[in-house]
Amino acid sequence: MPIVLGDNQYGKAETHVVRVTKQGATHELKDLNVSVALAGDFAETHLTGDNSKVVPTDTQKNTVFAFARDPIGEIEDFGIRLARHFVSEFASVYRARVAIEERAWARIHVKGNPHDHAFVRQGSEKRLAMVTCTDDGTWVVAGLTDLVVLKSAGSEFHGYVKDRFTTLPETRDRIMATSLAARWRYRDAQADWAKSFAGVRRLLLEAFASKHSLSLQQTLYAMGSAVLEAHPEVAEIRMSMPNKHHFVVDLSPFGLANDNEVFYASDRPYGLIEGTVTRDDSPEPGLAW
Amino acid sequence: MPIVLGDNQYGKAETHVVRVTKQGATHELKDLNVSVALAGDFAETHLTGDNSKVVPTDTQKNTVFAFARDPIGEIEDFGIRLARHFVSEFASVYRARVAIEERAWARIHVKGNPHDHAFVRQGSEKRLAMVTCTDDGTWVVAGLTDLVVLKSAGSEFHGYVKDRFTTLPETRDRIMATSLAARWRYRDAQADWAKSFAGVRRLLLEAFASKHSLSLQQTLYAMGSAVLEAHPEVAEIRMSMPNKHHFVVDLSPFGLANDNEVFYASDRPYGLIEGTVTRDDSPEPGLAW
Amino acid sequence: MPIVLGDNQYGKAETHVVRVTKQGATHELKDLNVSVALAGDFAETHLTGDNSKVVPTDTQKNTVFAFARDPIGEIEDFGIRLARHFVSEFASVYRARVAIEERAWARIHVKGNPHDHAFVRQGSEKRLAMVTCTDDGTWVVAGLTDLVVLKSAGSEFHGYVKDRFTTLPETRDRIMATSLAARWRYRDAQADWAKSFAGVRRLLLEAFASKHSLSLQQTLYAMGSAVLEAHPEVAEIRMSMPNKHHFVVDLSPFGLANDNEVFYASDRPYGLIEGTVTRDDSPEPGLAW
Amino acid sequence: MPIVLGDNQYGKAETHVVRVTKQGATHELKDLNVSVALAGDFAETHLTGDNSKVVPTDTQKNTVFAFARDPIGEIEDFGIRLARHFVSEFASVYRARVAIEERAWARIHVKGNPHDHAFVRQGSEKRLAMVTCTDDGTWVVAGLTDLVVLKSAGSEFHGYVKDRFTTLPETRDRIMATSLAARWRYRDAQADWAKSFAGVRRLLLEAFASKHSLSLQQTLYAMGSAVLEAHPEVAEIRMSMPNKHHFVVDLSPFGLANDNEVFYASDRPYGLIEGTVTRDDSPEPGLAW
Repeated sequence: MPIVLGDNQYGKAETHVVRVTKQGATHELKDLNVSVALAGDFAETHLTGDNSKVVPTDTQKNTVFAFARDPIGEIEDFGIRLARHFVSEFASVYRARVAIEERAWARIHVKGNPHDHAFVRQGSEKRLAMVTCTDDGTWVVAGLTDLVVLKSAGSEFHGYVKDRFTTLPETRDRIMATSLAARWRYRDAQADWAKSFAGVRRLLLEAFASKHSLSLQQTLYAMGSAVLEAHPEVAEIRMSMPNKHHFVVDLSPFGLANDNEVFYASDRPYGLIEGTVTRDDSPEPGLAW
Repeated sequence: MPIVLGDNQYGKAETHVVRVTKQGATHELKDLNVSVALAGDFAETHLTGDNSKVVPTDTQKNTVFAFARDPIGEIEDFGIRLARHFVSEFASVYRARVAIEERAWARIHVKGNPHDHAFVRQGSEKRLAMVTCTDDGTWVVAGLTDLVVLKSAGSEFHGYVKDRFTTLPETRDRIMATSLAARWRYRDAQADWAKSFAGVRRLLLEAFASKHSLSLQQTLYAMGSAVLEAHPEVAEIRMSMPNKHHFVVDLSPFGLANDNEVFYASDRPYGLIEGTVTRDDSPEPGLAW
Repeated sequence: MPIVLGDNQYGKAETHVVRVTKQGATHELKDLNVSVALAGDFAETHLTGDNSKVVPTDTQKNTVFAFARDPIGEIEDFGIRLARHFVSEFASVYRARVAIEERAWARIHVKGNPHDHAFVRQGSEKRLAMVTCTDDGTWVVAGLTDLVVLKSAGSEFHGYVKDRFTTLPETRDRIMATSLAARWRYRDAQADWAKSFAGVRRLLLEAFASKHSLSLQQTLYAMGSAVLEAHPEVAEIRMSMPNKHHFVVDLSPFGLANDNEVFYASDRPYGLIEGTVTRDDSPEPGLAW
Repeated sequence: MPIVLGDNQYGKAETHVVRVTKQGATHELKDLNVSVALAGDFAETHLTGDNSKVVPTDTQKNTVFAFARDPIGEIEDFGIRLARHFVSEFASVYRARVAIEERAWARIHVKGNPHDHAFVRQGSEKRLAMVTCTDDGTWVVAGLTDLVVLKSAGSEFHGYVKDRFTTLPETRDRIMATSLAARWRYRDAQADWAKSFAGVRRLLLEAFASKHSLSLQQTLYAMGSAVLEAHPEVAEIRMSMPNKHHFVVDLSPFGLANDNEVFYASDRPYGLIEGTVTRDDSPEPGLAW
């Protein structure tokens, strides 16, 4: 039973590049965390330490910085340029994957006016892009993560299986909260990335808010199908939604009622709901994920 | 040299309470992380394990939840009510300190309209209150933390001490970025907390943006004095400002210029600038900190 | 292009259970973080909110606690019992996956003797098990994570591809450090789990230390093949090894030599090397991963 | 009410230096995270941006690396050398404080023998030193943090105050667990640091294990007084001990008894017990803390 090398990839992770674009006194800011992963003809370095086909991760980092000197554009485009570079430049690279996280910044307002070159970071939410390239194709996945949402009405949970380990009471009124991570695969490697992203994000929020929920799964599906209905360029969307439990505190020992007003927000354990919404005629995902 | 008990306090930390207030279909949300610390006549539990004067931390947690059933108001007020309760209710408690972190939530907009009961969390920034009570007084400190700001112009650093370990080049143009933590002490235990907080936060941002900076210390002082000038109710402000270094990437090996456009955002090490701005006639801080 | 539900699963994540086993005055401790994920006939809850086939995640949590009352044994066995329960008990569950992290504790020694019931936690390293069950089979993956290792000699890196973005100097002597995450798939769903784990962990450490390294990839492969050679019960091993860079500090501006003695340990960016070592006749992984 | 500058300090935080010492083929490893903070005549940089008395934090970082080229010794000694340097070298520096965290590494064993130059990191516990210097004195504080301990017997909690918010049942048998942070001040700026540290750490563990506990406060005091009794060089010890709650799971709904065997380990909220043990004739702390 000879031992063999299986799947492998390597690259430079988390190159944190900040790009300032200056139009006179007015500056724009891009804040990106870029991770590169290459796969290809790298058996030799594993088997013998012969690195003659290895593109050092340090070079990958330098490449990210050098490419950032040109206008970055949307992160999907930046990822495509980088991924194609690695595939086309190096014979040993069969597949390049570039994953980018973008943090948003807004202008600080001074006496009501947006400032030219001073910014405040917009929370923990991140916009994501993941681009995969080979000689045969380019796959683009976009997404967002750490979008924390909560609804204090319009959520029920009942009618579930009961067994000998069931103690959960059914409820017609609960808080539903999650920290959304969503990634969607585009049908083609070209689209109006900024417009698509804004549209998808808005629909995810609107569906979360509007859909009366009988389960977090139902909400997930409603969010995903709202996206697919309005965005033909999206082939598939995958979501991960931890159920951030908010338990009604029992105030009866203190002679107090608690009509779903005072909640204890629990950290662990948490429900974790993961699901995909797609089309029955979506193109194959190929190497997208 | 007999061994003795020195300073001590105890309490329940990080009770995460979420309060929903319902006015018909319209809900309001308060998301608080409350920590209580009590000091007083607690030598016996240390020395002999006699707990007859100990208010269990579990009871403190229950108290937070029970008090949250009444309208919470501003976190300074909620802290005052809680702290006074512990001091007045229990003879053994000499000093109660209640520290509260508040996370902000905004309404989700659906088709342009704010939703009644669906919310999205506003980033990592936290509003802070710390209230200290004894029979003799009440001290209120407010603050904010994790407010990340950056300016891509208007920041210089030169003219500093050079010794044999100095390699830093002087600069007339750099990125200045920090994650601001600020806490300010009020002159009295009553003020228009919401208005003060909004005003202080706005001035901190405006001064950061507007003040042409020759050092992060100068910016810190400008921010603090802007607050004190406009807010007579504030006796003192303390700020901690890590210098989140953004280094200009040397692209010359690749034949590229980099005129302060492409930066590497470094995590560690970082400068850490801490300072206080106060008044020469501020009342003594007492037990505020 | 009708919209359809794709892959989905749900469950309770991170139920943190601590089990004390008492033999007279002598106690044993198990510290487990258990995550359950179920897949199966759950389309209805997504599409209509009909939960009649849903086993609540709260029930899953209760089940973990209830099962922890029996002797836990090795985490692989505990995972098998839990996963089989969910598959066999509920018609709607096609596949159950149970992932467990175990933290190690050692006895505190008092005057040289191990204490009966007092323990100190052993660092950040975690032992892992992931068990997947259907009616047709059981797959067991074991692993470890956060095992941080470093060698200060016996590591070179040279002979790699150079292009216009290459600035990294070749080296015959560098620090090599990583935080190892390894997971290995067992050929069968039964083995001497504790003995296998101890053997694999020992071999991973020994190969890291002993193998003269020309690249982190070579070290990864050496570690994996050492495991497969000695452990016929292991079909495949997957490793993720971030290259935790330690850069030689340039002390020449201060008139000091630095012969690989003083290093700056960098956080980001980092190389990330991922690879699999397997056998050419390994059974198919099936649903193991 | 003129506005004035109050307390302030600045410095470079978290310079992560790894020092390899080579005696032939045998290497030793020191892994330190060093933070420097300077206070003194720094009003001008705050008020006008005149940096002529400012020692850049970048220079402080360089100094840490340059000083690391000499044998480091114990971290208390390294801190003293660094702190004295800043005070003696720069007229503007009145007070220098150097805080160091040390991570422990052990040799990897290969076939039972300790390896010359391969190491495995020892968990999350950190050894601490904090040295403060002025022209008038040197103060040394040592410590440790993230030492997680648990006892599954020998801990009771009862006899406490009951009020209308009390629901906690009294217990004669509970798990007591904490993540210990302890810092102790030395009487003088010279001692056998390594021996003192080892002795204090051992006594903290032994007292935690051995002392039958009626409250976490009693355990804290027992731990501190054990240290002071055996270590005359220690003037004072301060401890912070979060009560990491382990709740007995109610298995009665499942028809199962739970005689303190199955516990749920909770993250938040947690009790937080802080206390100091000192001597009635300890020298004043001065600038130690």
